[in-house]
Amino acid sequence: MVMGSDKDFTVMEDTLKILKEAGVPYEVRVLSIHKSPEETYRYAKELERKGIKVVICGAGGAFHLAGVISALTTLPVIAVPLAVEPFQGMDSLLSSLQMPEGIPVAVMSVGKWGAKNAAIMALRILGVENKKIKEWIRGWGEEMRREIESKDKKVQEKTK
Amino acid sequence: MVMGSDKDFTVMEDTLKILKEAGVPYEVRVLSIHKSPEETYRYAKELERKGIKVVICGAGGAFHLAGVISALTTLPVIAVPLAVEPFQGMDSLLSSLQMPEGIPVAVMSVGKWGAKNAAIMALRILGVENKKIKEWIRGWGEEMRREIESKDKKVQEKTK
Amino acid sequence: MVMGSDKDFTVMEDTLKILKEAGVPYEVRVLSIHKSPEETYRYAKELERKGIKVVICGAGGAFHLAGVISALTTLPVIAVPLAVEPFQGMDSLLSSLQMPEGIPVAVMSVGKWGAKNAAIMALRILGVENKKIKEWIRGWGEEMRREIESKDKKVQEKTK
Amino acid sequence: MVMGSDKDFTVMEDTLKILKEAGVPYEVRVLSIHKSPEETYRYAKELERKGIKVVICGAGGAFHLAGVISALTTLPVIAVPLAVEPFQGMDSLLSSLQMPEGIPVAVMSVGKWGAKNAAIMALRILGVENKKIKEWIRGWGEEMRREIESKDKKVQEKTK
Amino acid sequence: MVMGSDKDFTVMEDTLKILKEAGVPYEVRVLSIHKSPEETYRYAKELERKGIKVVICGAGGAFHLAGVISALTTLPVIAVPLAVEPFQGMDSLLSSLQMPEGIPVAVMSVGKWGAKNAAIMALRILGVENKKIKEWIRGWGEEMRREIESKDKKVQEKTK
Amino acid sequence: MVMGSDKDFTVMEDTLKILKEAGVPYEVRVLSIHKSPEETYRYAKELERKGIKVVICGAGGAFHLAGVISALTTLPVIAVPLAVEPFQGMDSLLSSLQMPEGIPVAVMSVGKWGAKNAAIMALRILGVENKKIKEWIRGWGEEMRREIESKDKKVQEKTK
Amino acid sequence: MVMGSDKDFTVMEDTLKILKEAGVPYEVRVLSIHKSPEETYRYAKELERKGIKVVICGAGGAFHLAGVISALTTLPVIAVPLAVEPFQGMDSLLSSLQMPEGIPVAVMSVGKWGAKNAAIMALRILGVENKKIKEWIRGWGEEMRREIESKDKKVQEKTK
Amino acid sequence: MVMGSDKDFTVMEDTLKILKEAGVPYEVRVLSIHKSPEETYRYAKELERKGIKVVICGAGGAFHLAGVISALTTLPVIAVPLAVEPFQGMDSLLSSLQMPEGIPVAVMSVGKWGAKNAAIMALRILGVENKKIKEWIRGWGEEMRREIESKDKKVQEKTK
Repeated sequence: MVMGSDKDFTVMEDTLKILKEAGVPYEVRVLSIHKSPEETYRYAKELERKGIKVVICGAGGAFHLAGVISALTTLPVIAVPLAVEPFQGMDSLLSSLQMPEGIPVAVMSVGKWGAKNAAIMALRILGVENKKIKEWIRGWGEEMRREIESKDKKVQEKTK
Repeated sequence: MVMGSDKDFTVMEDTLKILKEAGVPYEVRVLSIHKSPEETYRYAKELERKGIKVVICGAGGAFHLAGVISALTTLPVIAVPLAVEPFQGMDSLLSSLQMPEGIPVAVMSVGKWGAKNAAIMALRILGVENKKIKEWIRGWGEEMRREIESKDKKVQEKTK
Repeated sequence: MVMGSDKDFTVMEDTLKILKEAGVPYEVRVLSIHKSPEETYRYAKELERKGIKVVICGAGGAFHLAGVISALTTLPVIAVPLAVEPFQGMDSLLSSLQMPEGIPVAVMSVGKWGAKNAAIMALRILGVENKKIKEWIRGWGEEMRREIESKDKKVQEKTK
Repeated sequence: MVMGSDKDFTVMEDTLKILKEAGVPYEVRVLSIHKSPEETYRYAKELERKGIKVVICGAGGAFHLAGVISALTTLPVIAVPLAVEPFQGMDSLLSSLQMPEGIPVAVMSVGKWGAKNAAIMALRILGVENKKIKEWIRGWGEEMRREIESKDKKVQEKTK
Repeated sequence: MVMGSDKDFTVMEDTLKILKEAGVPYEVRVLSIHKSPEETYRYAKELERKGIKVVICGAGGAFHLAGVISALTTLPVIAVPLAVEPFQGMDSLLSSLQMPEGIPVAVMSVGKWGAKNAAIMALRILGVENKKIKEWIRGWGEEMRREIESKDKKVQEKTK
Repeated sequence: MVMGSDKDFTVMEDTLKILKEAGVPYEVRVLSIHKSPEETYRYAKELERKGIKVVICGAGGAFHLAGVISALTTLPVIAVPLAVEPFQGMDSLLSSLQMPEGIPVAVMSVGKWGAKNAAIMALRILGVENKKIKEWIRGWGEEMRREIESKDKKVQEKTK
Repeated sequence: MVMGSDKDFTVMEDTLKILKEAGVPYEVRVLSIHKSPEETYRYAKELERKGIKVVICGAGGAFHLAGVISALTTLPVIAVPLAVEPFQGMDSLLSSLQMPEGIPVAVMSVGKWGAKNAAIMALRILGVENKKIKEWIRGWGEEMRREIESKDKKVQEKTK
Repeated sequence: MVMGSDKDFTVMEDTLKILKEAGVPYEVRVLSIHKSPEETYRYAKELERKGIKVVICGAGGAFHLAGVISALTTLPVIAVPLAVEPFQGMDSLLSSLQMPEGIPVAVMSVGKWGAKNAAIMALRILGVENKKIKEWIRGWGEEMRREIESKDKKVQEKTK
């Protein structure tokens, strides 16, 4: 269910790990609205017919991919702006975020955090009508809570 | 399904108009994680039990509302950063966007465009499992296309 | 030869005035990669066959139009990022500028100055192999020089 | 009296060193309004009853912790925005700074300097009614002055 | 207890209103580290002897006043960066915020919100050892809560 | 001794007023390195021969004038970056400031304050070897001090 | 046909590689409007007589070179803003981009991508009247497409 | 004639090298308006009596030193904003640049280039009434020109 644009793969791999853990099927594509516009176009038009339910896009620089795919589908599109030199993601952020009215893109935090959050957001969307996925997210939240509580205890002891 | 934070209402009204047009029920609340933290906390915990499926938050300045609600629910949370003086929304954008891993917020364009896009994004999410809503979005897209085509024709004639 | 995206017309009109003065034929379209993606796609693919030589695009916000058209043609594409609220053109600038290697967009100053400069840049491009256009540009430069010299004289007298 | 959010500990350790030197008791917690919202909420409500007088929070990214704690207490809350990739603290700064009227957060310099300054600011606050602490701050100031004067002398000699 | 730098008075007046309401005595000065450096210096050295407990400074542009006063006293110093043209407060913010280690300044939100928050922060500081002031802050918080709850009700009714 | 670039005159007039008050002779030119490059070049080369001692330049946007003149003379060159839409002077500031090593430009505050400060800086430079001018600056400083002291008194009385 | 400003050569070499591949003759100069203003001036005036058709300039910091050359010629001028410390190219970008009306500069992406895109843009300009060059660009586009398609296949297999 | 603020010395050393080469006497101080405010104050008041003619200040972060010294003297004050983490000099730049009307600071490029340019600017100021120094600057300019011309030749040969 994810498509990155090449070297972005190292960052976007975090997205897949979470989807795999949650047991949700996905497909990964490397498409570029700039380098393979026609293939991207064709793919975007087919998404719904193929039974895909949520789209996640990640890219850096002039990040047009998420916006153009959003224009070609009625599925929710999630964008992960990646931080590349020299503007450290401000360009990827603004170019995926500032969509005109009517064609929304759901933008996540820039970089690594965003790659993980894209997976969780996709799961939350699927969880709206799927109790099993909803349970999984709840479990993940519990995990996070336990993890931070154990860190809390360690630091409390260390600083007594 | 929407909650704004007071004078933000004038902007966020655009969200409601679209939801109403699409025939989707919603509820509107004015809550502030800073001014009414306990009420907000209680509300966020009850969202799922009340049958709410998607949450939309809009605010300006240090926009913590969407992030904190996202931490208290497993529903998808959509944020509309509003542009207030003096930083014109860069503060609302970064404070709703840069969420740590695990607690995603789906950020829309800053300001008016974002208010409309929040509604469309909510509909796309509901449309994942609801054909009628999906049809409505498709119709809305057609409408936009027709509108821009008519503008195109007018400008073509004017500049012949 | 110019295409703007709707209300951007008031700014982009300055481009047309100069092209008209220079006696260069052009066509104007209102297309949106987000609102009419298929029409835009078709138009971009036909540009060369229709004998068009240079493309000028103007838009605000997430300005993807110039980049996507550049991906679909081998013509030089000129972009005029327009300044819209709330980020005053920083979003339009970065989203048209930060193109990946291989698909260039020639970005002009943001806003009014850029609208005029797009016309002059298009003429300079056409002037590479067209002496008459080159002469016209030279004349325009002379005009600018005379204008500023007359302002210089006025201010010199006023401040003697 | 200090609470950081996990890896922020390496930076925030500077805060503790100064408080220890000044002989002021403190307690350290790792809490996250996003990962352990309920524990954080409970802790914030108990602060005054436990006899705590000043709260120091440090975090990076969407830094909501200080603002939400400020909403749940009447104690002075000091924030140290930490610089994390990719926005180098501009996100942590704006999200802790731009608090709406009525719920103040006292923001320190971003990063290392801020971690130390948070301790000194807490001491200045306690020093308002505590002569011993006030004396300690005065001594610390003297120390700084002597240190810079000795650097001044060294550079003067080196460059004679 | 407050000093602004001239036309900043219109903004800083909000600070005084709250202090007056809370029944806390204050004094107001217009001093400029740039235009009256010696008077400012003298005043900063005398603060403690005069029994002043908290200092609030407001200014725009290169806002050095809070930092230099902080260097000359051991009292807590609160800064309100004011938004002036053309950088809308980013200059006032960074120049009051980025203090080197050892000389803290407690920075509030930029502009109007900050002016009010400076008063509340001063009261929170005084409230650390003063139960009456603490009660006043609690009452103010209740007031804010009631106000937002009544807005909430109105909007709920309007949108039913 | 001053040269502005056309409509910048309204701002730069403040520079002249101060020079006139100080009794220092000056000449004003409207030159543009972009619109009248050859005239500008010629003028820059002649500056020293004409007995000019300090150069002040003001412009907005891509402000190349000060840098290029600095490259063609050994006189001190002062730049006043003017705030124009849409980047409010950040472009004029960075393009006049970030000069490579060896060709300095003395940049003043952006906009109105800078226009006045350019005059005072020019006077300070001339005052290095001219006691009368130095006296004038001292008097001007006294004036500023008296002015702010009278404002101080008024505000003190008003807020008693 | 290219001129860089010294150490910028390592980045700008990418431009030359593409021009060489495309079989287009070029000449390379190191000129600085600040360090060798007269030589630069002379060179800019001679460009057309020497039969040069497109100019590419690359520099960092206060990047005045492209703008001043554009003022001295009627050829299309392409600028590659290079990212140098500390502003990472925002200074080079704004100082080459924000040209006043009448003197256009065609700005490419900041840094490495821009260096390559400058070559492709120059080829697109020459290709307007040269079928062989146009064919070469089409081939280059095909190459990019094939490359990304092979990456796409690899990732698809890896993630099955 | 130069004063840096401690570790800034490594950058500011470039300033001294040039002054030494030019044979101009200078004195170096490490003073901090925040850490040694009284000593700094005293020093600033004595500058003129000691026969100093130009002041150069360098610092990072909240850079108040140049502005406060400028308020205490009638000498020209030159500022070199140094780039420190995390804001890479934007804080040092804005806090030294945005001086209110009447108290000018001559700001140089941020960082290394600025350190050298501060020396050249000081020499240009002294050169206004000193032919020998003026000659030295001219020679330095010639040197730069020769250097870049030799680089130009090398690159021309390498790329033939």
